[in-house]
Amino acid sequence: MSLHPPSSRFCMPHAASSRHPKLSLPRVICNATSENNKARLGHCTKVPRNVTMESLRNGYLFPEILIREAEHNEKYPHAKLIKLGIGDTTQPIPHIITSAMAQKALALSTDIGYTGYGDEQGNRDLREAIANVVYKDKGVKWDEVFVSDGAQCDISRLRMLLGSGVTIAVQDPTFPAYVDSSIIVGQAGKFLEETGKFQNIVYMRCCPENDFFPDLTTTPRTDVIFFCSPNNPTGAAASRPQLERLVEFAKANGSIILHDSAYASYISDDSPRSIFEIPGANEVAVEISSFSKFAGFTGVRLGWAVVPKELRYSNGFPIIKDFNRIVCTCFNGSSNIAQAGGLACLSSDGHQALCRSIDYYHENADIIMDAFASLGFKVYGGKNAPYAWVQFPGRSSWEVFDEILERAHVVTVPGAGFGPGGEGYIRVSAFGRRECMLEAARRLKYLLK
Amino acid sequence: MSLHPPSSRFCMPHAASSRHPKLSLPRVICNATSENNKARLGHCTKVPRNVTMESLRNGYLFPEILIREAEHNEKYPHAKLIKLGIGDTTQPIPHIITSAMAQKALALSTDIGYTGYGDEQGNRDLREAIANVVYKDKGVKWDEVFVSDGAQCDISRLRMLLGSGVTIAVQDPTFPAYVDSSIIVGQAGKFLEETGKFQNIVYMRCCPENDFFPDLTTTPRTDVIFFCSPNNPTGAAASRPQLERLVEFAKANGSIILHDSAYASYISDDSPRSIFEIPGANEVAVEISSFSKFAGFTGVRLGWAVVPKELRYSNGFPIIKDFNRIVCTCFNGSSNIAQAGGLACLSSDGHQALCRSIDYYHENADIIMDAFASLGFKVYGGKNAPYAWVQFPGRSSWEVFDEILERAHVVTVPGAGFGPGGEGYIRVSAFGRRECMLEAARRLKYLLK
Repeated sequence: MSLHPPSSRFCMPHAASSRHPKLSLPRVICNATSENNKARLGHCTKVPRNVTMESLRNGYLFPEILIREAEHNEKYPHAKLIKLGIGDTTQPIPHIITSAMAQKALALSTDIGYTGYGDEQGNRDLREAIANVVYKDKGVKWDEVFVSDGAQCDISRLRMLLGSGVTIAVQDPTFPAYVDSSIIVGQAGKFLEETGKFQNIVYMRCCPENDFFPDLTTTPRTDVIFFCSPNNPTGAAASRPQLERLVEFAKANGSIILHDSAYASYISDDSPRSIFEIPGANEVAVEISSFSKFAGFTGVRLGWAVVPKELRYSNGFPIIKDFNRIVCTCFNGSSNIAQAGGLACLSSDGHQALCRSIDYYHENADIIMDAFASLGFKVYGGKNAPYAWVQFPGRSSWEVFDEILERAHVVTVPGAGFGPGGEGYIRVSAFGRRECMLEAARRLKYLLK
Repeated sequence: MSLHPPSSRFCMPHAASSRHPKLSLPRVICNATSENNKARLGHCTKVPRNVTMESLRNGYLFPEILIREAEHNEKYPHAKLIKLGIGDTTQPIPHIITSAMAQKALALSTDIGYTGYGDEQGNRDLREAIANVVYKDKGVKWDEVFVSDGAQCDISRLRMLLGSGVTIAVQDPTFPAYVDSSIIVGQAGKFLEETGKFQNIVYMRCCPENDFFPDLTTTPRTDVIFFCSPNNPTGAAASRPQLERLVEFAKANGSIILHDSAYASYISDDSPRSIFEIPGANEVAVEISSFSKFAGFTGVRLGWAVVPKELRYSNGFPIIKDFNRIVCTCFNGSSNIAQAGGLACLSSDGHQALCRSIDYYHENADIIMDAFASLGFKVYGGKNAPYAWVQFPGRSSWEVFDEILERAHVVTVPGAGFGPGGEGYIRVSAFGRRECMLEAARRLKYLLK
């Protein structure tokens, strides 16, 4: 690599302020137990720290990146950072959708338009729209759709539902919230430094050699299989035959697939957009999804989960009943204003307007993919997801991350943050303004040539 | 009691549709394990049901009430139901607040106004406003405030944080989410039919005889003390000396108080509005609160938690660090539009406008309190909370609930739903339109005289 820090000073889609300002806490020795230490700290409760929280590795990946980003900003206050790290949408939301939200907000000031608590499961009109538009001809019923405040929150609720007694498998690399939420509920077991894996989690390797689809013939049975398609971080969408094999595998093993389709709207080929396109999936799968990347709702907060009535525990009890109970007890429904926006997203005009944003991000992805490809790098993803997954064989991904940040002022995500299978890769997001993508491509070409 | 069902047919603040339509599920024997049963059901996974989910009693209280309400609606399709059950706000939100939300929504359609992910902890301006306005002179710093989607969600996140290894105490009667979330994380132990209590939970009796404040001299030490003031359901606000005793008790025992101040804005005397008015509380307490009842945001979804930096586990580790991690891993922040509304609530004009709604509900409470008092019933609460807590000595509260529903078409909440200490009481909500309160008072007087 060779690069002189670029002198150009533009492209700051976000204010420079850190999303995660560091907590200014008194310096504390984590496992301080000596009376001396405690006396220095002042009062300590007698409440033990939850051992599962102690098992969490470092910070959560994205906050960790933001901390490094903030440190970089401090070091180079005048550098124009380009953020292709966190997959954060940048295109404005079509007016037809925001005006529906504005109208709902204003209606809350009127006697006729005011509403208080909605159904915890979401408004029926939105649940019906999701069933009828997103799941058209896929056999999903409106009362199997639970509207949420986003897929990440649903992952956590599903982990709470299933408890610490279930075994899980994740793709490797994988979106970190699946692993971290499993650690928190006490399922993951011990972290093994030598493998970079948690003892009780099955890691299903996904790499170019297996077309980013796990070798199910060697995958041990687990109760739960987290499966994200199109995949974050690799960008790979499972094909129909692949998903059929996965459903068959789950059925044979009595497993539950937790299918994350948050990026389904980015699929540009004939890969299934939902696990429920596969016959029999309703007996083995839950699907979580989101308006975040589909509609630019990362800040508005809206998603959903589909829990089919046919999905049952080993004792025959329907899982939907327990999920409903979790939603009623641990959640109180999504914001009514966000739900009005969700409904507008699924209208014909709303949907059409959103397709233009998705096309825009696809074009961004092409720019990034081309930049790396033109330099001779192997780059994956991009076609069915807004992420490029770039291979740096034999290199530490945090080292590559740091180097690109330090020298090109471009933020990416180190593959190792997604698990041991991500080592040697970085994830580059296609979310961003066009001019930033072009400038990032220019800097990267200069750095990497 | 004597009552002919009233013939008047008005007062339906909400549409008659059920907030909780019953799931139309195939009939299933819960613990069906025989092969015969399973064959009838079709495919069952081999995933065991989480034993903690099996421990949950019946439905969650409020969904259970809504089911009975829906059944009542079916039985009396022309009766005009008055809903004084679930504490659901009915007054429109002041325009100054909804217009701030509408503006934020519309700004999301512009290049300059679009924002994606916010800080998981909430926008800094809102965190500062909460610290400066709600906690003025109470020593709470902005970065100790975590904006949320409501107190109920925070309860669940706090339970997830603390895990199943901690012991808890609740007021009895108590808001059910404290107990139910403890059951879900596996802390509550066995339910004992003979006492109506969970084995591992300490129930702190709160009743007229002890001024609704627990006798701490006989309360065993627990790791966590859930304390709600002003209380839901009893309506009692703890006085300053009482809260001082509670803080002292927690400090001596090394306990953490989870203080729920969701109804603080209803305090009309000099009771503390926050646990942080008590010196030393920052070393022993977390406070959760909400815009729901303060601003009519039950459907908009916005709340907060305050976790002081001085609050530590037994090993000296600051709890705020783990809470921050939970918020980043299991939550992705509140809706940016709701947050814009929250900021407007805390502006001088917004706050003033909201006081008028609170006065309105206080006047409603007076009407309900007077109706019961004039009939010779002992009635508590009302003054510092929007709930009347009415005593029916020696009677089953579900029976009283059913009778009032059946004969007066008025929905209340049976005290027993809040724990064994609620038996013999009903909770009557003061949320509702004035004409409904007057009509409810008329019907109740007729029924109960």
